[in-house]
Amino acid sequence: MLVRNEILDMAVDFGRLDIRKFVLEEWGQPFQDMQSLEQGAIANPTENRQVGHYWLRAPMLAPSEYAQEIQESWVALEELEERIPEHIENFLMVGIGGSALGPQFLEGALETKGLQVYFLDNTDPDGMDRVLQGLDLGATIVGVLSKSGGTKETRNAMLETRKAFEEQGIPFVANAIAITGTGSALYQQAQKEGWFGVLPLWDWVGGRTSITGMVGLLPLMLMKRDWKRFLAGAAEMDAWTRSLSAENPALQMAHAWFELGEGKGNKAMVALPYKDSLLLLGRYLQQLIMESLGKNVDMEGNIVHQGLTVYGNKGSTDQHAFVQQLRDGKHDFFVNFFAVLESRTGSSIEVDEGHTSGDYLLGFLMGTRNALTEAGRSSLTVIIPRVDEWYVGALIALYERVVGFYASKIGVNAYDQPGVEAGKKAAQEILVLQQQIMAGEEVPETDDTWLLKEYLALR
Amino acid sequence: MLVRNEILDMAVDFGRLDIRKFVLEEWGQPFQDMQSLEQGAIANPTENRQVGHYWLRAPMLAPSEYAQEIQESWVALEELEERIPEHIENFLMVGIGGSALGPQFLEGALETKGLQVYFLDNTDPDGMDRVLQGLDLGATIVGVLSKSGGTKETRNAMLETRKAFEEQGIPFVANAIAITGTGSALYQQAQKEGWFGVLPLWDWVGGRTSITGMVGLLPLMLMKRDWKRFLAGAAEMDAWTRSLSAENPALQMAHAWFELGEGKGNKAMVALPYKDSLLLLGRYLQQLIMESLGKNVDMEGNIVHQGLTVYGNKGSTDQHAFVQQLRDGKHDFFVNFFAVLESRTGSSIEVDEGHTSGDYLLGFLMGTRNALTEAGRSSLTVIIPRVDEWYVGALIALYERVVGFYASKIGVNAYDQPGVEAGKKAAQEILVLQQQIMAGEEVPETDDTWLLKEYLALR
Repeated sequence: MLVRNEILDMAVDFGRLDIRKFVLEEWGQPFQDMQSLEQGAIANPTENRQVGHYWLRAPMLAPSEYAQEIQESWVALEELEERIPEHIENFLMVGIGGSALGPQFLEGALETKGLQVYFLDNTDPDGMDRVLQGLDLGATIVGVLSKSGGTKETRNAMLETRKAFEEQGIPFVANAIAITGTGSALYQQAQKEGWFGVLPLWDWVGGRTSITGMVGLLPLMLMKRDWKRFLAGAAEMDAWTRSLSAENPALQMAHAWFELGEGKGNKAMVALPYKDSLLLLGRYLQQLIMESLGKNVDMEGNIVHQGLTVYGNKGSTDQHAFVQQLRDGKHDFFVNFFAVLESRTGSSIEVDEGHTSGDYLLGFLMGTRNALTEAGRSSLTVIIPRVDEWYVGALIALYERVVGFYASKIGVNAYDQPGVEAGKKAAQEILVLQQQIMAGEEVPETDDTWLLKEYLALR
Repeated sequence: MLVRNEILDMAVDFGRLDIRKFVLEEWGQPFQDMQSLEQGAIANPTENRQVGHYWLRAPMLAPSEYAQEIQESWVALEELEERIPEHIENFLMVGIGGSALGPQFLEGALETKGLQVYFLDNTDPDGMDRVLQGLDLGATIVGVLSKSGGTKETRNAMLETRKAFEEQGIPFVANAIAITGTGSALYQQAQKEGWFGVLPLWDWVGGRTSITGMVGLLPLMLMKRDWKRFLAGAAEMDAWTRSLSAENPALQMAHAWFELGEGKGNKAMVALPYKDSLLLLGRYLQQLIMESLGKNVDMEGNIVHQGLTVYGNKGSTDQHAFVQQLRDGKHDFFVNFFAVLESRTGSSIEVDEGHTSGDYLLGFLMGTRNALTEAGRSSLTVIIPRVDEWYVGALIALYERVVGFYASKIGVNAYDQPGVEAGKKAAQEILVLQQQIMAGEEVPETDDTWLLKEYLALR
């Protein structure tokens, strides 16, 4: 029940799942859908888009025009690296959602050997002040990430950042990189004003799967981490998960999700990496999985209200928080453990006779796994030797593939996000209502107008 | 459907809950149980303990011996403050669970005006190296938090920290504060070695509700934040939530949890503060609620498998992640919004004509709330003017009280954590198995032995 890959040097243990056995024949259609997707089909029909994140690490498999664009983006990244002035110490990333969580996960997983990385990932004035006040802006490169340039949180954070630069008399344009779609409003602005750099985002790559594009590669480059090895790890996982075989861990995992949640997401997935540096993996997977699978309708237009809830931080810390409920409480979840075999680069002291801190870390993982098995709770375990560029790339590629297979199986479009648009529209109505109140117009008495008036009284 | 308190200057909006109306009479028993608890009953019978976190901010209500100990601890804290040497810049907190997440939440919510605070909250060697290598240990005070002194993660992190001090020739003992139970192993060690300070933890305060004890007050003091105001905010919320009234927000909220989840936690609670500084509130509530409610048996010994799942990070950021699923996907949750009225201390630029970044932040909250209401999803909204010591204390006290009422209603002990002990025991068995393998003893071939051998090959 353990699948292993010698080239990747990693394994996934499926031996503790209380489910029906995997049957390869049942996954023929999802497998074919994935093949079509990789061959350039319109796999995202509601947005009439191709889905190309797998091409980002294997341009030779992409349509030729995309292949060229991908390779040109790598060249542009290397040219940019040459031009970073010596005095630059910080990199401030301005973006939200797929343009923030991926880089934040990378920054936590891989210690920087170059620039320090900071984030503005919201439209919270206090939050922006806290980050900007602590930064030496004269030693800071800003990256503004937005495919369309129209995401309000990112636009607002960029304007606030720009103002902070101007107030200190430091030229913003000379320190700013736009990561955006060719021809977008942001692209045009950057071209017109002569920003320090422009790097591409493509409409055939969704935000939550953009980490192997410039969204992830730019911060890795600035952190002096090996972004090519990150791509290589992802590509190697892609190679493994392209096989129509019971040894394909992505098919096995999609099967586990399907069986455990009865194809309806009836069990939440708890992501438990036993490694501090993987703290944000749970949040990264939460975004990737919930935004992909949480859908109203299936591909045929039937109302389905699908989804798969994901939460989790890190072990063994979470054992002193919610693992109490996992062991004794509601049986509404399964656990995805992540074990990292090497515990540190240097030597370790003995904390007990014969035991190190690292022994305890693995012991707590395995002990909790046993305690959950005893309580009849299913789990699976992903095992990697260490956290580096290669394995971070491989982990991400694994879950991207699982999401694709599973979405196909339950028949939903994993690549659109109509609910996000609906939220933006509803927010616009609130801004109009605020204007009406400020202009003294008569408005209906609702909890909305009450809250806006409370807000305006302190504004 | 909005309850408001003038002294606290905060409100909770219960108007968007699709539930049966609140009936005060149905909450008589939980209310009485809470009164007994506050009067010193053994509210935690499995551990034969009183439950005294409410006394920590109102010692006049505590049994007299405890009242004296609480007040003495405040004096000890003030004396300690006087003795912190001028050259100290950092505070390193070593603890896990209740002894880490509370302080981490405080550190995120309230910007430090004093020492920088760092944490070791795990037994991960890499994680410890990363924190310790970045610290000037000569300018660092260490706090070791463990009630019994027996928590392995904390013990290990303390030993590793001590070694780091010794390797640099900096005396550990002169820089270390023990926060522990009187008479514990850690207490005795600190006394014997003459540590810089010793502060108390009491067995009538559980870890996950210890934040208004020294666990929270010590870091607040070192951050030069007003810990008395933090206590006052909590005390004022306690006063509000002690009333047998439909205006009691804790009773109303417990009712909402009960109705929405049919008394079985059938809906998860999504915590969505629209404020960067409250990012860890969701994790804090996850620990408080899931460890308290996730129980196997009720007070009469019936098997119940209770619980209430909690997750969430911050808005509007999460709107670009899992809110897609909330709006369109499975109806297996309700949302607890948190609105903060003041968006920043200084003035704001207009990002659009007539609108600031803060307008957008509130607009996204209200827009998402409307979008969820339209989709038939329940939500409630906690509204505070700003994030400061007072409101952080009040928020924490509110949820402590809700957990108490709700646990009483469903009949579980909210104050023990038997599953945590079970996990520790299971881990001990793994450590023994590891020793057997290292000693070359014959062991059964299982996935446990396989994983341990993989680990030992790289150790």
